Amino acid sequence: MEHPTPGLADFLASVESARNWMFTKARRVPLRELEQWRADPGTGVIRHASGKFFTIEGVEVHVPGGAVPRWRQPIIHQPEVGVLGILTRRFDGVPHYLMQLKAEPGNRNGIQVSPTVQATRSNYTRVHGGSAVPYLEYFREHQRHRVVYDARQSEQGSWFLRKRNRNMIVEVDGRVPVLDGFGWLTAAELHHLLRVEDLVNMDARSVLSCLPVLEALGPTVALDRDEFTLSLIRSLSGDPRSVHGTPELLSWITDVRTRTDVELRPVPLTELSGWHHDGDVISHESGRFFDVVGVRVEAGGREVGRWDQPMIAARDVGLAAFLVTRVHGVLHVLVSTRVEPGFSDVAELAPTVQCTPENHVLGDIPKPPLLDEVLGAPPGAVRYDTVLSEEGGRFFHTRNRYLVVETDDLVEHPGFRWMTLHQLTGLLRHSHYVNVQARTLLAAMGSLITTPAPARDLVAAGVKGAAR
Amino acid sequence: MEHPTPGLADFLASVESARNWMFTKARRVPLRELEQWRADPGTGVIRHASGKFFTIEGVEVHVPGGAVPRWRQPIIHQPEVGVLGILTRRFDGVPHYLMQLKAEPGNRNGIQVSPTVQATRSNYTRVHGGSAVPYLEYFREHQRHRVVYDARQSEQGSWFLRKRNRNMIVEVDGRVPVLDGFGWLTAAELHHLLRVEDLVNMDARSVLSCLPVLEALGPTVALDRDEFTLSLIRSLSGDPRSVHGTPELLSWITDVRTRTDVELRPVPLTELSGWHHDGDVISHESGRFFDVVGVRVEAGGREVGRWDQPMIAARDVGLAAFLVTRVHGVLHVLVSTRVEPGFSDVAELAPTVQCTPENHVLGDIPKPPLLDEVLGAPPGAVRYDTVLSEEGGRFFHTRNRYLVVETDDLVEHPGFRWMTLHQLTGLLRHSHYVNVQARTLLAAMGSLITTPAPARDLVAAGVKGAAR
Repeated sequence: MEHPTPGLADFLASVESARNWMFTKARRVPLRELEQWRADPGTGVIRHASGKFFTIEGVEVHVPGGAVPRWRQPIIHQPEVGVLGILTRRFDGVPHYLMQLKAEPGNRNGIQVSPTVQATRSNYTRVHGGSAVPYLEYFREHQRHRVVYDARQSEQGSWFLRKRNRNMIVEVDGRVPVLDGFGWLTAAELHHLLRVEDLVNMDARSVLSCLPVLEALGPTVALDRDEFTLSLIRSLSGDPRSVHGTPELLSWITDVRTRTDVELRPVPLTELSGWHHDGDVISHESGRFFDVVGVRVEAGGREVGRWDQPMIAARDVGLAAFLVTRVHGVLHVLVSTRVEPGFSDVAELAPTVQCTPENHVLGDIPKPPLLDEVLGAPPGAVRYDTVLSEEGGRFFHTRNRYLVVETDDLVEHPGFRWMTLHQLTGLLRHSHYVNVQARTLLAAMGSLITTPAPARDLVAAGVKGAAR
Repeated sequence: MEHPTPGLADFLASVESARNWMFTKARRVPLRELEQWRADPGTGVIRHASGKFFTIEGVEVHVPGGAVPRWRQPIIHQPEVGVLGILTRRFDGVPHYLMQLKAEPGNRNGIQVSPTVQATRSNYTRVHGGSAVPYLEYFREHQRHRVVYDARQSEQGSWFLRKRNRNMIVEVDGRVPVLDGFGWLTAAELHHLLRVEDLVNMDARSVLSCLPVLEALGPTVALDRDEFTLSLIRSLSGDPRSVHGTPELLSWITDVRTRTDVELRPVPLTELSGWHHDGDVISHESGRFFDVVGVRVEAGGREVGRWDQPMIAARDVGLAAFLVTRVHGVLHVLVSTRVEPGFSDVAELAPTVQCTPENHVLGDIPKPPLLDEVLGAPPGAVRYDTVLSEEGGRFFHTRNRYLVVETDDLVEHPGFRWMTLHQLTGLLRHSHYVNVQARTLLAAMGSLITTPAPARDLVAAGVKGAAR
């Protein structure tokens, strides 16, 4: 592939050269051997000696009337709200976004592209003293700049207990020095990167889903486009030809959140029925779902060091897919509501299908609706198909295949609603409506405007892991 | 006052005649003598023998950095999400709203005007069997009608622990039988009632704040109006001349919610430092704030019966006030963010001033900013001034004075933002942004369009309690 702009080629070259000086080496060690981490005698809760960072706890989840009404599982408890921020600035009128190269221990390929800033709450709220986190002052003192986006958003509610991060996009006017390991990219360039396997990290995708895409791409966005792309642009633009009015969609969400009870009860990590915990690793007896593993990390780069930590390692590659269809020339996505135990507010909007297909092979757990439709779609209907990594600071080699599949079938199955992208991004302005998998898919759909070629034809030269 | 329409005159006459057959008689009894209610031996929690309804519990609240950083108090715990619903239908093209006359034990004047439906969650979610609550089926099976509004909203976060009700407006097409004690009113007629002391109850005001007012009043709303009313109509209409952009306002709210910690810890009701609990009543030692009292109720009307219950009785009349100003011909309201321990999400948008002025007379609790400006405003600047009751099912003779005061002072004090009504009602489409006192003021401001005469000139003939 020829890189569409010199900016992108330079950036990809910088990724390669950064691999020489920025790295993490992570190797698995038994949980009981993690330095500075210990298990509470009574509850088995795994926590850091400092009391900081996060804990691994046991919970019993009860969702009366749910497909699986009651289960126990380990979960990460990290109540701090951190900041994921992308700085934007116009060069010759074109918005650019300052992206960071970052190595995380759970990344299978070392460096990925991350937001300008990933900061913890203690970094963010401290008033005194210089900041060790570059560019943090733009987000701490955002009143001096233009805030494009600022809301708290959930992360994996199946693995995190009420984890939220503050997602921010802040626009600056003046000159911004570019440090080693950072680079300015346009929205179109970011869209190309979103087609590359395991390259744009979860935090970056989360913030990019909040980008006002049409504004970022400028006034020629609808020029000389094919009908699919035009339907996507109409969908983002607020075209009134939507299947449902927004009050009806809000009522649908209110209904689910009002009718569904989710009860969470802490249980000792050593008493999780169905789970095996031998002090080395915590695994499900069926060999499915995920493990809690110990990892020993050596890192080089900006923050040199060595540390141990527990991580969640999914057993198999997950799947998150949107079915999309054109209604009166306007692209609609089929959205579901999904209850995850760690959500702050019962349920959030989620992809059409979100599951780990391997879990359903034995047939004892019912397949989610529309899984077969998504996986069996003809190649021409697949608009986006890329495997991307989940957050490498907490998840070890944990990945999802993200799919956007077009269908002619307008049927709206119970529990699903066809929504325009304008409706979905309108809700995304507020906290806790759209889950992190759906946010990645929203970012991916933005990329369909500027990279209309089928994903399988893309090979990102110079970057390990090619697009599928 | 002459009633503007025969509909209103008839309705007010029906309020009077209903007093003959619908009533509650409530008298105070010691807490320890409440039948069917008892205090847990260990925690002092007051609960009903059936386990239903609500409990009175003790909490310690810790808000680091708050004006009062730590205190203990009794609080009502009622986790159920009920439904407050108003049915609407067009007659000759004009939207009408079906209102209910309802007597509640805490009402000092017996009957008040309430929504079509006030139902508990168990009423609402039960699938089988006929409903004892009239008109509930329109809200249970709302998919068959047009949902105008549907979101969960908080109630008094200082007195309720995470209490939310589902506020709904549902439009029907067909004929709806009108039962005794119910009546159809237009938005303009409701606006007149909102000027009458203690007449429109809190639940009704909460739902009415969500009404699309301009749509309800129709296309002649801006005809022959004075400049103040036009500035109000511009403010509701989405005029782009707002002081702040909406992303900036969302960021302000996100910032407060991210930076503020609220820690709640249950403490025994008998160990509330600062409170006196002798089994008869729970009172603050300073004689301020509120009491928890026992009430014995005899009710007649639709639901005849006799029961005991605890209630909260505020010691003094509270105050909730919006300062408003015109900027470029568009009315703006000065909104604050307010942390209340019972909120689901840290802080909500609140009136410019919300307090009980009596609490600040001694000078040991600092006066809230702008209290003097609000109370000292010249009479001509007071646009709305009416004392209204808080929810009579939980609060005994508990009232607030609601004020809308115009100012020329554009200064934006720290912690406040000038917002248009369009921005505020835009947020009100979603749950948990606008607190119940601000919602009453929003409903009151709607009434300024159709009842521009100063409140003090209104006397509602035939209704006890005249407008101030």
